[in-house]
Amino acid sequence: MSDDAYVPHPDRLLPADPAIRDIARSLYGSMREQPIVSPHGHVDPRLLLDDEPFRDPTSLFITPDHYVTRLLHARGVDLADLGVGRGPLEETDSRAAWRLLAEHWHAYAGTPSRYWMEHEFHEVFGLDTVLSPATAEGMYDAIAEKLAQPAFRPRALFDQFRIQVLATTDDPVDDLAPHDALAADPSFTGRVAPTFRPDKYLEPARADFRTLTDALGEAAGVDAGTYDGHLAAMRARRLYFREHGAVSSDHAHTDVGTERLDAADARRLYTAAREGSIAAADAVALRRHLLADQARLAAEDGLVMTLHPAVYRNHSQATFETFGADVGADIPHAVDFVHGVAPMLNDVGLDPNFRVVLFTIDETVFSREIAPLAGFYPSVYAGAPWWFIDAPDAILRYRRAVSETIGYSRTSGFIDDTRAFCSIPARHDMSRRLDAHHLAGLVAEHRLREEDAAALATTLPTRQPSQVFKLDADA
Amino acid sequence: MSDDAYVPHPDRLLPADPAIRDIARSLYGSMREQPIVSPHGHVDPRLLLDDEPFRDPTSLFITPDHYVTRLLHARGVDLADLGVGRGPLEETDSRAAWRLLAEHWHAYAGTPSRYWMEHEFHEVFGLDTVLSPATAEGMYDAIAEKLAQPAFRPRALFDQFRIQVLATTDDPVDDLAPHDALAADPSFTGRVAPTFRPDKYLEPARADFRTLTDALGEAAGVDAGTYDGHLAAMRARRLYFREHGAVSSDHAHTDVGTERLDAADARRLYTAAREGSIAAADAVALRRHLLADQARLAAEDGLVMTLHPAVYRNHSQATFETFGADVGADIPHAVDFVHGVAPMLNDVGLDPNFRVVLFTIDETVFSREIAPLAGFYPSVYAGAPWWFIDAPDAILRYRRAVSETIGYSRTSGFIDDTRAFCSIPARHDMSRRLDAHHLAGLVAEHRLREEDAAALATTLPTRQPSQVFKLDADA
Amino acid sequence: MSDDAYVPHPDRLLPADPAIRDIARSLYGSMREQPIVSPHGHVDPRLLLDDEPFRDPTSLFITPDHYVTRLLHARGVDLADLGVGRGPLEETDSRAAWRLLAEHWHAYAGTPSRYWMEHEFHEVFGLDTVLSPATAEGMYDAIAEKLAQPAFRPRALFDQFRIQVLATTDDPVDDLAPHDALAADPSFTGRVAPTFRPDKYLEPARADFRTLTDALGEAAGVDAGTYDGHLAAMRARRLYFREHGAVSSDHAHTDVGTERLDAADARRLYTAAREGSIAAADAVALRRHLLADQARLAAEDGLVMTLHPAVYRNHSQATFETFGADVGADIPHAVDFVHGVAPMLNDVGLDPNFRVVLFTIDETVFSREIAPLAGFYPSVYAGAPWWFIDAPDAILRYRRAVSETIGYSRTSGFIDDTRAFCSIPARHDMSRRLDAHHLAGLVAEHRLREEDAAALATTLPTRQPSQVFKLDADA
Repeated sequence: MSDDAYVPHPDRLLPADPAIRDIARSLYGSMREQPIVSPHGHVDPRLLLDDEPFRDPTSLFITPDHYVTRLLHARGVDLADLGVGRGPLEETDSRAAWRLLAEHWHAYAGTPSRYWMEHEFHEVFGLDTVLSPATAEGMYDAIAEKLAQPAFRPRALFDQFRIQVLATTDDPVDDLAPHDALAADPSFTGRVAPTFRPDKYLEPARADFRTLTDALGEAAGVDAGTYDGHLAAMRARRLYFREHGAVSSDHAHTDVGTERLDAADARRLYTAAREGSIAAADAVALRRHLLADQARLAAEDGLVMTLHPAVYRNHSQATFETFGADVGADIPHAVDFVHGVAPMLNDVGLDPNFRVVLFTIDETVFSREIAPLAGFYPSVYAGAPWWFIDAPDAILRYRRAVSETIGYSRTSGFIDDTRAFCSIPARHDMSRRLDAHHLAGLVAEHRLREEDAAALATTLPTRQPSQVFKLDADA
Repeated sequence: MSDDAYVPHPDRLLPADPAIRDIARSLYGSMREQPIVSPHGHVDPRLLLDDEPFRDPTSLFITPDHYVTRLLHARGVDLADLGVGRGPLEETDSRAAWRLLAEHWHAYAGTPSRYWMEHEFHEVFGLDTVLSPATAEGMYDAIAEKLAQPAFRPRALFDQFRIQVLATTDDPVDDLAPHDALAADPSFTGRVAPTFRPDKYLEPARADFRTLTDALGEAAGVDAGTYDGHLAAMRARRLYFREHGAVSSDHAHTDVGTERLDAADARRLYTAAREGSIAAADAVALRRHLLADQARLAAEDGLVMTLHPAVYRNHSQATFETFGADVGADIPHAVDFVHGVAPMLNDVGLDPNFRVVLFTIDETVFSREIAPLAGFYPSVYAGAPWWFIDAPDAILRYRRAVSETIGYSRTSGFIDDTRAFCSIPARHDMSRRLDAHHLAGLVAEHRLREEDAAALATTLPTRQPSQVFKLDADA
Repeated sequence: MSDDAYVPHPDRLLPADPAIRDIARSLYGSMREQPIVSPHGHVDPRLLLDDEPFRDPTSLFITPDHYVTRLLHARGVDLADLGVGRGPLEETDSRAAWRLLAEHWHAYAGTPSRYWMEHEFHEVFGLDTVLSPATAEGMYDAIAEKLAQPAFRPRALFDQFRIQVLATTDDPVDDLAPHDALAADPSFTGRVAPTFRPDKYLEPARADFRTLTDALGEAAGVDAGTYDGHLAAMRARRLYFREHGAVSSDHAHTDVGTERLDAADARRLYTAAREGSIAAADAVALRRHLLADQARLAAEDGLVMTLHPAVYRNHSQATFETFGADVGADIPHAVDFVHGVAPMLNDVGLDPNFRVVLFTIDETVFSREIAPLAGFYPSVYAGAPWWFIDAPDAILRYRRAVSETIGYSRTSGFIDDTRAFCSIPARHDMSRRLDAHHLAGLVAEHRLREEDAAALATTLPTRQPSQVFKLDADA
């Protein structure tokens, strides 16, 4: 093997101790081939509809992946040199961006981004080479060559990845035509489900709230000029999504407050928001009320609610102005679930048709709030670690904090939440290895019978998220 | 062994690595037979006074144990079907509840509730069978049969469990007659101490504050119609408890604020609270003042103060209305000790007669606040993990966060805090195994000499809580 | 070996598993001899200038080390008996204090203070004896005898410890004469850099704010009677420090707010503060503005900013009044970096001349805030665990929470932050062992290639802090 050679170890992420690793290897063995269910993510459905070849290695691995661009930026690389905020790159620029990644590759040592990409290089592209300035051109060429082959088109990879269900994230005014076309296409047998994400229509402080709610009303065929119209429009669009295959809605606000207003106040504040005259505190109050409405609608239509709160978006204003959103400048902050969701759970938390999955980047709520909530309310599930904490040690911390209170049946199953299509199998595989790691540790310390661990291994990768997101019922 | 057979492993919870396990086994060996000191819990003293047989397996293991009922509820079981909020169950219903537990037993895999119950099945009832729908009836019968035997009556179990001291939790107006009767009973040689828990008499926002304080005054033979009367009544009732064997008081409010009011303000607000006209913010201020008073009284009478704050009680109002409190719907939240207890510790924190033990479910304060406080103030001890975090990984996190700052002498010793009588030895045994686990890890990494670990093993289970709760002095 | 004998194990703090330990031993081997760079600490420069022998074991190991005195205080020892708040102790008293430490030595088992001191006893003083009442006198004599030898004078130890750079912490009005004298002394070849710590001149709520700012102005030769004068004086003093070898400034306030005021408000409030008439909330607002000014000045002069926030200083007022500050009564609290530093980072966070290192004792921000900030902003580095959490398990938690998001290049390198001169090599050695421990674990689980771990081992101890604190450029 040359110095450049690198093959990810087959036992990677499993415990180092040989006796525990044997247990983990067996558990992982029963998990690794299970189909992928991905109930929340950011892949564009047109990727699968059009089934065009991926353009080049940079646009596949670097430009759209803010996990990758953020660390390069921190190390002094200009985001523009990575293609961020620009259209498709010329080949020269694309190769230059790839070389930048190669030059900084050593700084990714120990990060999940490097782990995932090395998995992809090996498992998807058959490249057993360490990325470095010396190997960058060769790897670029090798990947580019593969991308031109039919087997590396999105649909072929979808099948190769054994994806059973892939959820996208969609705007409530979207007509979901790509989803319909995919569903109607007899040559594509996968399931691609839209997800209803109404965040911006629930933020009365936005300067464009009137324009947005007008558009929402238009899409719904309802006058959304009033609060009642907004509610009717939301109800209609959620049903539209449900009819077009959606199983869940997604909500990412700065907090998870769900206190309801009096009807009169809601109407008054909604009108003020449309007129641009709402006070800041009132905008927060109305946003919480509108989120509480989504919970009521969820109890009606059965879409599973997912909450992804407490991120300070676009922390660097200058970066946002130059490069836009989702470039790595979002910073998590603390969140209070226990008081935030109390009004909502008192409203619909015991309703058998209501279901909510609580996600967090603030790990402090794992044992303190999320496990206790998911361990009491039949409607609440503990979401898998997300974004910054979708990483090996954090995932183990999650299991050790959440599952020792509520076991495994009240957890969401793994959610990849990714816009990097080729990373989907790498991420799910990582999660399975870590669950095997975790369960094997319990078995080795005689805290869990080997039979029970084996049964969980059968369930956790595919069946658990299918049940939580009601995918079995619709399948 | 049949598939149903299950014997808890003798090395359970010890480290998996054979070399470290050997060290841990030796440490655990010197801890396992030590008597149990339980300075805080929720067993009814009448259980031991009356010494009646336990009624049936369901009322012993399920109905009163909100750790068990909460997860069944989350999985869709009606609390009523578990006997919650009802009187004693008919045998048919009791057996049906037991079968419900058996059907969901797999979902408890990895939780401390299952761990404790399997310990009890094996160690207390001699049952080496996994609970399942197939074994449910047989196990019910076997336990029921044992419960009818004299050896399974509460006092016999008390002796078998090697309980040296058991503290109950009691209302300040209680006359403690059961405690007196037990102490006077020559046939019972155990020590059962009451604990003074005045929470509801310190919550001026309660609608029944007048009724409560009237009752308090009556019990004390003091007019508690004024603030000064309240203080006098509290002083009297605390002394009464002390004279009847109490060593500590317990306090569980939503925060640990202890800021004092001016005397005039305290008097005025107390009167307003009695009249039902106190403003919400004033009620909080007065509650903090009244808690600060408890600290002053503790410095007078020497009762050890324990704080168990920051739980949102009865998070589901509908559940509370149907089933009452303590059914699993309490959810912890964040707490601020450093500012909260500052006024109290500036008042009495250096007084040699004052002592306070800080408990938390919010793990973030372990290294940040509790260890630093207990590592400076002679009066402050770091309480053991409690309630939701009385679980193996959380207990190890506590040791790793707290004891590496303050060692072991400033920690409370294990507190079971349970209302499940038969779980007492299981819980204490778990704690001992985990301390052995933790200490063995330090020895194996040459962070602690084996002699020092052995000395700690001699001290931690029994002597440490006896010293912290002043049980030696009174013994 | 007698019962009193104790030699720290050569593999201490490395993983217990023999296979992982082998990897760790090799990594540690390449780290252990690297020079010490200490960019932040509290050693007095006069110690090295005067090069007087240390007075006695108590003044070396006990009196000035609040890590040691706080736990003795918690165990009931009077701080006065340890020499705290007194002048130099008579030998009788010094020996009595040493015996107190010996009597309580067992209570330090498992703490870093004991670990460091045992390292020092062995490595610096050649004493392979456990401290105990039986050995206390002999150890005192042995250490006292060594201290009288030339090889144990500060400069000789500085060389023996292989210290390359040692930063002190200094008052902005200090003329830095000891630093100049040291730099001019041809017989001393070490580098001792001052650090600009302006905290008290940025706290408008202080009763002595006028006196302080007058003194600041006088030192700068500027009238600091106005806000503009304050800014000019700060600019001048920072440049003075920079010219005299400073590479960083240090800032420890109760929060990290950096919101700027309008210029007119800043001027008005500054004047009010000088007149003693500023309202509490305004004093906070002005302090945040003044801290934001420091960031602007840092972008001008290139001093690396370090933030050490969120400690409740002198939590016990009575202790402060009797013994002064820095005696162990400081208690950390929660901190919010994400909102606090947002204005500052929007102001200068993308400026290539600006750099800030974020330190915390509140571990909750490791994965939630600090890693995401340091993983995006080129100016931000994640500071090493500090003070209460400069301890083995906390350091491993830091690596597992921070480095799996941002790798190693965005972390500060180890900072000892100590006033205990002899503990410097013990602390740096501990950090190296723990980095070896951590990296070896990743290698053993095939999360990191052995080559990558070896490369990091070469970089982390010396080069990483040198780069972060711009020490290479100035060397």
